[in-house]
Amino acid sequence: MRFKFPLMAIGLEVAMIVLFGLFVQYETDQNIRQQLRSSNSTDVDRFFELYPLFQNVHVMIFVGFGFLMTFLKKYGFSSVGINLLIAALGLQWGTLMQGILHSHGHKIRIGIKNMINADFSTATVLISFGAVLGKISPLQMLIMTIIEIAVFAGNEHLVAEIFTATDIGASMTIHAFGAYFGLAVAGVLYRPGLRRGHDNEESVYHSDLFAMIGTLFLWIFWPSFNSAIAEAGDKEYRAVVNTYFSLAACVLTAYAFSSLVEHRGKLDMVHIQNATLAGGVAVGTCADMAIHPYVSMIIGSIAGMVSVLGFKFLTPVFATKLRIHDTCGVHNLHGLPGVVGGLAGIVAVALGASDTSTPAMQAAALASSIGTAVVGGLITGLILRLPIWGQPSDQNCYDDSVFWEVPRWREHDHHFHEHHGHNHLEPEL
Amino acid sequence: MRFKFPLMAIGLEVAMIVLFGLFVQYETDQNIRQQLRSSNSTDVDRFFELYPLFQNVHVMIFVGFGFLMTFLKKYGFSSVGINLLIAALGLQWGTLMQGILHSHGHKIRIGIKNMINADFSTATVLISFGAVLGKISPLQMLIMTIIEIAVFAGNEHLVAEIFTATDIGASMTIHAFGAYFGLAVAGVLYRPGLRRGHDNEESVYHSDLFAMIGTLFLWIFWPSFNSAIAEAGDKEYRAVVNTYFSLAACVLTAYAFSSLVEHRGKLDMVHIQNATLAGGVAVGTCADMAIHPYVSMIIGSIAGMVSVLGFKFLTPVFATKLRIHDTCGVHNLHGLPGVVGGLAGIVAVALGASDTSTPAMQAAALASSIGTAVVGGLITGLILRLPIWGQPSDQNCYDDSVFWEVPRWREHDHHFHEHHGHNHLEPEL
Amino acid sequence: MRFKFPLMAIGLEVAMIVLFGLFVQYETDQNIRQQLRSSNSTDVDRFFELYPLFQNVHVMIFVGFGFLMTFLKKYGFSSVGINLLIAALGLQWGTLMQGILHSHGHKIRIGIKNMINADFSTATVLISFGAVLGKISPLQMLIMTIIEIAVFAGNEHLVAEIFTATDIGASMTIHAFGAYFGLAVAGVLYRPGLRRGHDNEESVYHSDLFAMIGTLFLWIFWPSFNSAIAEAGDKEYRAVVNTYFSLAACVLTAYAFSSLVEHRGKLDMVHIQNATLAGGVAVGTCADMAIHPYVSMIIGSIAGMVSVLGFKFLTPVFATKLRIHDTCGVHNLHGLPGVVGGLAGIVAVALGASDTSTPAMQAAALASSIGTAVVGGLITGLILRLPIWGQPSDQNCYDDSVFWEVPRWREHDHHFHEHHGHNHLEPEL
Repeated sequence: MRFKFPLMAIGLEVAMIVLFGLFVQYETDQNIRQQLRSSNSTDVDRFFELYPLFQNVHVMIFVGFGFLMTFLKKYGFSSVGINLLIAALGLQWGTLMQGILHSHGHKIRIGIKNMINADFSTATVLISFGAVLGKISPLQMLIMTIIEIAVFAGNEHLVAEIFTATDIGASMTIHAFGAYFGLAVAGVLYRPGLRRGHDNEESVYHSDLFAMIGTLFLWIFWPSFNSAIAEAGDKEYRAVVNTYFSLAACVLTAYAFSSLVEHRGKLDMVHIQNATLAGGVAVGTCADMAIHPYVSMIIGSIAGMVSVLGFKFLTPVFATKLRIHDTCGVHNLHGLPGVVGGLAGIVAVALGASDTSTPAMQAAALASSIGTAVVGGLITGLILRLPIWGQPSDQNCYDDSVFWEVPRWREHDHHFHEHHGHNHLEPEL
Repeated sequence: MRFKFPLMAIGLEVAMIVLFGLFVQYETDQNIRQQLRSSNSTDVDRFFELYPLFQNVHVMIFVGFGFLMTFLKKYGFSSVGINLLIAALGLQWGTLMQGILHSHGHKIRIGIKNMINADFSTATVLISFGAVLGKISPLQMLIMTIIEIAVFAGNEHLVAEIFTATDIGASMTIHAFGAYFGLAVAGVLYRPGLRRGHDNEESVYHSDLFAMIGTLFLWIFWPSFNSAIAEAGDKEYRAVVNTYFSLAACVLTAYAFSSLVEHRGKLDMVHIQNATLAGGVAVGTCADMAIHPYVSMIIGSIAGMVSVLGFKFLTPVFATKLRIHDTCGVHNLHGLPGVVGGLAGIVAVALGASDTSTPAMQAAALASSIGTAVVGGLITGLILRLPIWGQPSDQNCYDDSVFWEVPRWREHDHHFHEHHGHNHLEPEL
Repeated sequence: MRFKFPLMAIGLEVAMIVLFGLFVQYETDQNIRQQLRSSNSTDVDRFFELYPLFQNVHVMIFVGFGFLMTFLKKYGFSSVGINLLIAALGLQWGTLMQGILHSHGHKIRIGIKNMINADFSTATVLISFGAVLGKISPLQMLIMTIIEIAVFAGNEHLVAEIFTATDIGASMTIHAFGAYFGLAVAGVLYRPGLRRGHDNEESVYHSDLFAMIGTLFLWIFWPSFNSAIAEAGDKEYRAVVNTYFSLAACVLTAYAFSSLVEHRGKLDMVHIQNATLAGGVAVGTCADMAIHPYVSMIIGSIAGMVSVLGFKFLTPVFATKLRIHDTCGVHNLHGLPGVVGGLAGIVAVALGASDTSTPAMQAAALASSIGTAVVGGLITGLILRLPIWGQPSDQNCYDDSVFWEVPRWREHDHHFHEHHGHNHLEPEL
């Protein structure tokens, strides 16, 4: 039991190394350059033009997603730690999966767009991770990473190459996909024993502040996320500008509705940590189109509102009626705003904002992203239900100490350490 | 009462969307391009040249200012949360206010400099927010944001266009302005009931560490703040180099004087969090001039020293004698160093370091920035004193739980949650 | 006693200002430009091409190293605060030391590479700081900064100019050097009284999360660290790609071995915080060579494994048998992986991956880096043992309250504040 996780991790890394040895090359290798008759200088110049945007996305993946999930009082190590683990695995696997589909039999040449897309492909898994946070083992997450990224790459290929739909900020292919994949997994792994909640499933004051580190870095760098793989020039420029203003507008409505839906008018940290980001998700599909800044702001405003309403009214219904428990509320941050983004894309294309896609193809892309995600998530969930992956017991959910050596809470907390710190029954890693 | 804040936030956002629809366009719109006979490629190239500097400034505004103010033990949610709210509103409003003054009747074209300037204009409000931190409601901050950015844009236009003074890092127009505006508001809103302090007006160990996140990101990216709107080439280069060395020098004197002024020689976190940044403020006005690196270091050294001395000796006097209570000590981080920066600018111009301004114009810019700020702040303070904005009672100052759903402090703190967490009398949001 | 630290800090800053006045100029000064017949535009263009990479390194130095060391429960102020202090001093001193060796009698012209190298030179001191963390006074760290950067600059000159060895990511000249320098100092300053450990030498839950902020920003920006001073074009490109994949591979083996070596299979935060970074260190020397991405991943995998094994088996032996107590385990993060990097460089050069160096010269560089570090560290240790630097007593180790005004731990901890907060005997700053 205790060797499954490390052996799986080592086995996967060995497999990655072998596959990279067989299929991956530098973009600048002489033989490739001659073969393609391309000059190297342009490629490398473009590499460093986009490198700052890549680094922004990189911060979002590792600090943004990682800290956003540290809001649980006893699950910070796992949130930020497993986030790092699956993103590190996912970026290697995503390089291969996306590369193979795009390279048409040639070797995969690593350029800056491969690296950005590799980071993107990890984002889907990190979103799905949010739905099952605290209820799943590191080993299960390794399995899920491998399956989900393969499915993601397939759907992304379908959307971009077959439907030739436009989805520059990936509202559909990353956000909606990751959310519905995660919800499907969460549905299959539903724990009736926790339907009344769990003592650990709450935040403490400082864990909510740690989560704000994640929120802010996601918020700040989202314009880079939506523009990183846009066509250079006007489209890239508009992707930045539209996302910047959509996010700003979204903050205002998220705060307003957070206050409105609470009966004493107080703000809820869950809304602020998440719904303020919905504008970045929802403007994604049409971020690079000439939709006018004020339209971005309308999209952002709607997203902030929808996201808060989702947290308040939909999440409880999902947990009780649909038997889908969504720990981080990814449906409200990524699912609903992703659908809003997909719909906005259909409307924008119908109004002529893009000359490469049609409303039907956009609709097909949205349906395909959700459909593939749900089917992929259900199958993944069934695989993860096999009783061999060390899934934590109901009692041990949302608790780092199942998988981590955990120190006491703070300096003079002797009793906590002695009485609770090391009392969990068996390690299930 | 409980609907005032959300309705104001929604109303402001609707107003922003309408105003953007009327007055704002992309920089790359075909019709504008033809009208101005400008080629688009240069604009867009410059956009992505400056985009990394913009992103640095963006981190400063949202993470830097936000976390710098989390030092209070029970006011972290508000510090980082209201910071996000007012910056998101402020950047939309700042885009309009600064754009209208610069666009001479044409539509406002959103380029990278507009976005940098929009972020800058929020900085003034965030600085002023520091002076009234913990004593003001979110609703009051929305009002203050609207008024202060309008006044700021007016003064900035006066300084740059009428006086043609130079102030590239905005020592005068942002830092001194924001500080004195905030002090004027704080003076009008003075609370005699808190003249002996408040139990909540102190830090705890980890809140001081959260604040250091803000300090460090401000410190690291300050060279980008001072160079972001500098003329490309030598001036931009010098703005980076001068700021880099000024900040480094400032750290040494801030540490030295923090130890010197404490009777046992210990360091004070308040000084380290704030005074180490004074070098960035003070070198601002002459950051792009050829003043020599060693002169930047002298300016930084003086600023670090002045800032610590301000915290130690001036802030208590302000609170007791002048009846101006400055929560974050913005006078010491932004006010005094801003004035030092303005004076350094006068001297530098007198010595011939700039060929576009005169010492008299520099002095006029400094006087105008302080004067406008004080008058604007006094009027704003009077408006905010109207008993309709949900200002917290003395007893509820510096306490997140007035405006936020607040979780317990940490895992096994049952008594705290039960006895204190939800006992505040009325929500005043 | 209590004036030694501030006076030393002021004295050093005054010295820096004088030396900068004598030896340092802008890169763009007219007289220099004419003298060198160089056009300014290229230099300034290159400045802003590399500026984003510089800023990434800057984040690593101040946030990365600073927060990585905040894992100790009562030493966070010192970790992040003294890190800032010595980095601010070190970058000024490093500019001078490295500049003098490279400028051949001319004035030092500040370009972007000087700033990157200045940041690099502080990294050596910050690494060594990790070995003595908690056992040394701020005054001692000022002395150590001055000595170590001088020795570092000498060794770096020897390696780069005399041996003409290649070490683009500085596995040898920064990481191995900094680690062995620090270990030598720690050996000389060994405290027999603490051979059974110290109550304060442990983390609490949230201090481990603060440390992860450091880990993640180091991890994210390491590709910039290894490529920042690489030759523009292919080499710079490869330095990014190799480091990106080495780090990703390293994470998998670090997690696997962390779980393997713990008897219940749990993960250890110390390993995750540190060993996940070893891949960045170990790929440093050959980062810019055409070694193939899969070889980078092999190097990273080995580094992650070696680093965890070092923490588990070597560090205890060092502390007990060799009487070298390494607080942060810098030997495992920087020492061993640095040696792995040096050895990988020898092999890579032997296999023809570089045309500018030979295996013998690479070996000489590795030997020189370790040898200089040990000798320099021993001498520095002897100087720091002089009983005039205010070194804390054994009992006061790992405790901020010796050098800092420390607030209570959290809101309702009245007893802690009253009984422990201000009870330390004498300030030893």
